[in-house]
Formats: sequence, C-alpha cells, structure tokens
Amino acid sequence: MNAPLFEVCLRIGDDALIAAQRLGEWSAAAPDLEEDIALSNIALDQLGVARLMLSYAGEVEGAGRDEDALAYLRDDRDFRNCLLVELPNAGPAAGPHAPIDFGVTMARMLFGSTYQLLLYQWLLDSSDQRLRDIAAKARKESAYHVDHATQWTIRLGDGTEESHRRMQAAVDDLWPYTHELFLGTAPAGVAPDPSTLRPAWLEAVSDVLTVATLTRPEDGWAPSGGREGRHTEHLSYLLAEMQVLHRAHPGAMW
Amino acid sequence: MNAPLFEVCLRIGDDALIAAQRLGEWSAAAPDLEEDIALSNIALDQLGVARLMLSYAGEVEGAGRDEDALAYLRDDRDFRNCLLVELPNAGPAAGPHAPIDFGVTMARMLFGSTYQLLLYQWLLDSSDQRLRDIAAKARKESAYHVDHATQWTIRLGDGTEESHRRMQAAVDDLWPYTHELFLGTAPAGVAPDPSTLRPAWLEAVSDVLTVATLTRPEDGWAPSGGREGRHTEHLSYLLAEMQVLHRAHPGAMW
Repeated sequence: MNAPLFEVCLRIGDDALIAAQRLGEWSAAAPDLEEDIALSNIALDQLGVARLMLSYAGEVEGAGRDEDALAYLRDDRDFRNCLLVELPNAGPAAGPHAPIDFGVTMARMLFGSTYQLLLYQWLLDSSDQRLRDIAAKARKESAYHVDHATQWTIRLGDGTEESHRRMQAAVDDLWPYTHELFLGTAPAGVAPDPSTLRPAWLEAVSDVLTVATLTRPEDGWAPSGGREGRHTEHLSYLLAEMQVLHRAHPGAMW
Repeated sequence: MNAPLFEVCLRIGDDALIAAQRLGEWSAAAPDLEEDIALSNIALDQLGVARLMLSYAGEVEGAGRDEDALAYLRDDRDFRNCLLVELPNAGPAAGPHAPIDFGVTMARMLFGSTYQLLLYQWLLDSSDQRLRDIAAKARKESAYHVDHATQWTIRLGDGTEESHRRMQAAVDDLWPYTHELFLGTAPAGVAPDPSTLRPAWLEAVSDVLTVATLTRPEDGWAPSGGREGRHTEHLSYLLAEMQVLHRAHPGAMW
C-alpha cells in the first residue's frame, strides 16, 4: 500500500470528520434559526468531504476497510486530525460543564477553513486524480465556510466591548493550535508540504483580524501530536459518543 | 389579526421546528456516515419549513414578532406542536438517561412525515397564497422523508428477530400519539380539517407496516393537548436547551 498517500487521506478526512462532529453540537443551541441552518450546512459539507476522503483512504489501504470502518472502528491513537478540530466548543481550557462558546467556534472555523481552502486549492493540481476531484468539490464549500467565519469574526471583534473581549479571548486560546496545521511532510506532487501553506494562511487570517480590530497573538507555545495520533482527552470523549451505536452493533442497526 | 390562520401557521411551524431539534440529536450518534448525513439533511428541511411558517405566523399576528422571537421567546404553553414530535428519541416512556433509539426515530418519521406530506399536498390548493408557496417546497422534501422512513421501517421490521421486535415496540409506543394529528379544526379553504387526512394516512402507514411484517396497533389510548399548549415535560427540557443562548442575550451573540 501507498502509506504516505493513506496518511494524507486520513489527515484530511479526519480533520473534516471531527470538525463536523463539533459543529453538530450547535444543532440544538444556535443563537438563531438562520445560524442553526448555516452551521448545520457547514457540518454537512465537512461530513461529505470526510466520507470521500475516508472511502479513498480505505481503497488506498487495500485491507477491506470502508469509510464506516475508518470512522467508527478506529481508536483515538489511529486518528490523524489536528488538535484544533477536536478541542471543545467551550474552549481548550474549559471545564467539562462549560457552555459552548460561539466565539471559539468561529475562531476555529476561521483558522481551520482558511487552512482547508488553501489545501484544497493546492490539491486541484495534485498528481492524484481522486484528490483533484475531491478538492474541486470541497474548495467551493470551503470558500463559503471562510466567508461565514470572516463575517462573524468581524461582527463580533468590531462589535460591543463584550463581544470584542470574548472574540479576542477565543483567538488567543486557539492560536497556539494553529501551528500544527503546518507541520509534517507529504508525498511530493500529491499533497503540499504543509509549511508552504503558512504564508498565505497568515496573510489571510491577519487581514481578517485587522478588520475585526483584533490583535494577532504572539507565536509561542505550539502544541502538536494529532498528526501522529497523540490527541487530547477531548477526542476520546468525542469518539465515545460518535462510535457507541456503530460499535455496539457493527454492520447492523441493533 | 386572523387568529385561526395564526394558529395554523404555528401548528405547522412548531411541528417542523421540534422535529428538527429531535433529529439534531442524531448528529453525533448516527449508526453510519450515510445515515448521519441523511438525518442531518432531513433536520435541515424541517428547519427550513419552520422558518418560513414562523415568519409568516409573525406577519399574520402583526405584533412585531419574527421567526426568532417565536422560536426562542415563547414558553412551552405557547407552542402548538403535536406531542408526537416532542417525545424523546429514546421513546415516550424512557427514563432520562435512556439511549436514543433508531426505531423510535424512524417510526416517528414514518408517522409524522406521512402526515406532513398529506397536509402539504392539501395546502397546494389552499386559498392562502403563502401557504401554497411553502407547501410546494415542503411537499417535495416531505416525500423524501416518507421514503427514507419507509425503507428503514421495512428493513428493520422485516429484518432480524431483534430488529423486528424493537421496531414493533417503537410502533406500539408511538401509535397512541398519532391520533392527535387528526384532531382540531382549521379555517375552511385555508387548511384541511385534520380529521379528513386520516383515511389516506392510515392506508399509507398500514401498507408500510404490512410490507415490514409489523402489526398495526389497536386504537385506544389517545393522548392529546399539544395543539392547545398542554405538552409533556419533554418539551420543556428541549426548549430549555434550544432557547438558552438566545434568551441569555436576545438580539446579540453575547
């Protein structure tokens, strides 16, 4: 099997899958009906990419695992998503009963979707036909996600004193986790060297923060490990909930 | 204000809104990725109808309430949804920590969406232009929901011994709540007399149950009250979760 390509598919697919699960937590709790629909649609887009990427990963692996086997029957150490997407909506340092936070969700979407958009744009020229096809679909959706997060970041950052304070706190809390997006390697021609995406990412994100009257945090602490399967405890809880039904009765409803 | 028309809009809109919230509970717990996407899409359809109907209800009322005011700032006694849609996914008699049940969700969808489809078909000839327009959109989506529930009911009912037993239990548990769908009155020409929809509903649902090798329950106990605002305690919990963010900071994020 082509192990580097398998890893690339897992990284992209797992990022999308876990992002979708976190967005799903808003389905009963969004601030208004319009946002409820918007977040649900974005979650569906991410889930769609996850299915495509995990299906392809299974084919590349050639061991008979399909998208569901990869989504529901792997343990956290076999997930390759970045830490950014698995952090709770309440924020990385929030206690177990902290309420979900819209600023955290929007800062995460700004950082994560800007990365995804640049990644998918690169993949339009990948030497791998399947990755090109998936990227062509995902890129358009991703541009909408970036736009949605941008508008909210500006509205909240350049809003009231309270909304500014909370949006800045979300940006500060999540910033350390963005460094991991640009670590690691990838097979040449198939996927981008992650570090090459950072300049364009930094420019796009900085522009939004400036318009939103938010301060770009200093680079410093840079937690990582997600791409190698070393995750926060938050992923274990997320997977427990996501996998319980499928694992109890694999291949059947009951 | 046209009070009977306002009531009609609330009934239809609240049924769709609460159905969407219950389906949203599956977003992190569906049995596989395909079903996760299907249930999320159906929830989005219901939410779309809810927005249109509650917006129109607000206009009919003429008191300045928009869709969000009606969704987030009413108490349970002002909701006009049927009891069927508010029951927990774990089933009407399940304890507070019972796991959500796919059979209950599918039986509810079969009963509820078959009713919605007949209702929307009738509304295509309503004397009210807005109701005709909304029904034209909703009817197509509803036909897909009925098809989805039908396929699962047959697959589970005519499946293993265990899946048959559990699907029959879900049908038995929910059947009493279907009677309420056909109670009450409606302004002539604008919306159907609910009782006139029951023969077609009974025929459609009975056909599915027969193919699924399931037994149609006896008619007997017929709880009602939802259309007059007398709800189960389950609606209070659902609304508490759905409304908390909007109520804490009405009109703003924080």
